[in-house]
Amino acid sequence: MQRSFSFQHSVPKEWVDYNGHMNDAEYNRAFSQATDAFIDYIGLDENARSEWDYTVFTLETHTCYLQELKEGAAFEITAQVLDYDAKRIHLFLSMQNEQGELAATLEEMLMGIDQNEGRGAPFPESAAAAIQGVYEEHAEQEQPKQAGRVIGIRRK
Amino acid sequence: MQRSFSFQHSVPKEWVDYNGHMNDAEYNRAFSQATDAFIDYIGLDENARSEWDYTVFTLETHTCYLQELKEGAAFEITAQVLDYDAKRIHLFLSMQNEQGELAATLEEMLMGIDQNEGRGAPFPESAAAAIQGVYEEHAEQEQPKQAGRVIGIRRK
Repeated sequence: MQRSFSFQHSVPKEWVDYNGHMNDAEYNRAFSQATDAFIDYIGLDENARSEWDYTVFTLETHTCYLQELKEGAAFEITAQVLDYDAKRIHLFLSMQNEQGELAATLEEMLMGIDQNEGRGAPFPESAAAAIQGVYEEHAEQEQPKQAGRVIGIRRK
Repeated sequence: MQRSFSFQHSVPKEWVDYNGHMNDAEYNRAFSQATDAFIDYIGLDENARSEWDYTVFTLETHTCYLQELKEGAAFEITAQVLDYDAKRIHLFLSMQNEQGELAATLEEMLMGIDQNEGRGAPFPESAAAAIQGVYEEHAEQEQPKQAGRVIGIRRK
């Protein structure tokens, strides 16, 4: 069986703002890079995408910022497929800091695109099987607390 | 009365990825810059923040990607305060392309922070009044379609 997906990186100088912490936009960059790595992981790397004229678009993302990260701090992003269908992946990414604490989460909807038609198209069979594999890894787990959130001020 | 908030920019070369369109992480950068400009707009610019030892954190964001933007394309981001309380702003930003079409939206929750205490604290009075002013500008408008979304695959 393939190793579970993991994206490891540390905070470069350029991602840190005047107060010494990773800028909020850069969390999204880290998650965007992790998403690219995840797309490779399910077998849709550059060669495959080019061969099949296929690509993957991000439709929407929801980010929760939980802990600050300083310059040089290492982090790891892991992935959970919350749901999927023939063309879409409902993906949840968790960023942990060096202490193993949750530093941020990204929930997102991805859509597979036929580049010739310019619209949604089913995942190639091998990718669909890989997506199902990642889904099944976590199928018994509880939904992460940060998934399915609506932004709003709750009043008593 | 003060002019409505508006942030104008165009897509620099560095924000464009291999397929010639603005990378998804850069939409969040544009919205992050617009958020900084909004914080200045409500009177919490660098001088004021430094004087009051006060800052504003982003707790969570929800981005919808609606239209691609090419290198050099101009865009404008406008703001609507959907809700607020003593310490928080529920903000909605709309990015329009040169044709006036909605290219992306960002919904977010911001929290004012007392830098000495390192925790949430009420907005300074002048900022609170400015936030109320922006809220009232749009109070009669319908909630934007992209606000209050939960990410998920709907099945019939």
